[in-house]
Amino acid sequence: MKAYPALDRLMACLGRLPGVGRRSAERMAVHLLARRTGLLKDLLAALAEAERSIVCCARCGGLTAAEEDPCRICADPTREVALLCVVEDPADVLAIERCGEYRGRYHVLMGRLSPAQEQGPDDLRVKALLQRLDAEPIREVILALHTEMESAATASFLHDVLAPRGLRVTRPAMGLPAGIGIVYSDAVTLAHALHTREPFGIGPA
Amino acid sequence: MKAYPALDRLMACLGRLPGVGRRSAERMAVHLLARRTGLLKDLLAALAEAERSIVCCARCGGLTAAEEDPCRICADPTREVALLCVVEDPADVLAIERCGEYRGRYHVLMGRLSPAQEQGPDDLRVKALLQRLDAEPIREVILALHTEMESAATASFLHDVLAPRGLRVTRPAMGLPAGIGIVYSDAVTLAHALHTREPFGIGPA
Repeated sequence: MKAYPALDRLMACLGRLPGVGRRSAERMAVHLLARRTGLLKDLLAALAEAERSIVCCARCGGLTAAEEDPCRICADPTREVALLCVVEDPADVLAIERCGEYRGRYHVLMGRLSPAQEQGPDDLRVKALLQRLDAEPIREVILALHTEMESAATASFLHDVLAPRGLRVTRPAMGLPAGIGIVYSDAVTLAHALHTREPFGIGPA
Repeated sequence: MKAYPALDRLMACLGRLPGVGRRSAERMAVHLLARRTGLLKDLLAALAEAERSIVCCARCGGLTAAEEDPCRICADPTREVALLCVVEDPADVLAIERCGEYRGRYHVLMGRLSPAQEQGPDDLRVKALLQRLDAEPIREVILALHTEMESAATASFLHDVLAPRGLRVTRPAMGLPAGIGIVYSDAVTLAHALHTREPFGIGPA
């Protein structure tokens, strides 16, 4: 069947969303266009509203309401100013906030170093990070990047940049995730967790 | 962190897409709103364009351009008028057209019988199907529904409705999918495939 350009364009857009392949994009597009649930109109309205009202915080890069910039976290005087958590993506901020354990502030890189995608330090918010380190009384930087190879390389790069400044540079502990059996853990994680074993009974949970 | 209503609404909409759970919806929403790739604007434009220009064919229910209704397949005089393939979803039409093997026409039910979702025959395009059977010289109906339980019940229901009309009612063969080892096939499929084994060397491939 000859294709419909408007359908193809919609599928191509949906296929650019994270985790959405060609077949999923087609399924989503058809679901929207079959119009059984009103989702197409709802999604159009929600996207337009979110575009108007949600921005990235000029300071940390996390999501915030357009009328709250800097964001609530940056503006909150009760958050520790000495502690800065560097993450790749605004979604990481949401995940860390959900755990309820972190009381410092954030800096979103907006990605990671990626030779494959020609993404270097200047494509990330590295310069903005260094400016914050000059301007704010930050003493510890937590590099909470993902655990894939490019992310690990990005963390190494940042460590090399940050260490000469006399900052404490840390990362979240590696180890066994909650609620999973030892047999399901990969060898690298398990070896690391045994090497860095901790006194029984510590931790917030 | 207190939520942002516009972000919550966008996540809720994305979560209504097929195959998208809560975490995926959050990841998609944040990806869109981080605005690194222009995807938010592109998706808004693609959705608006598709909404304007793509409709469901008044006859078969498949997707078509707004200015081509009935759709190209319904309007194509070279397609077999005696053969009608009943499917659940407009996406099924796209999949069957891609295989290039089918030369009849379609009828999209827009779903399946589902007691759980309170979806009965009147919520599907069953009446439209019976009207077509009265109006068109259809001699065979292929029930190409999905293979889950609700779909099988829907096919049974349609078979009971159609059989008294003296139509030939068929379904696509069940059997081993291409490119997969026998050890990966489930017992039901394998038993069926052995029971309905076919002469070596037939088929289009």
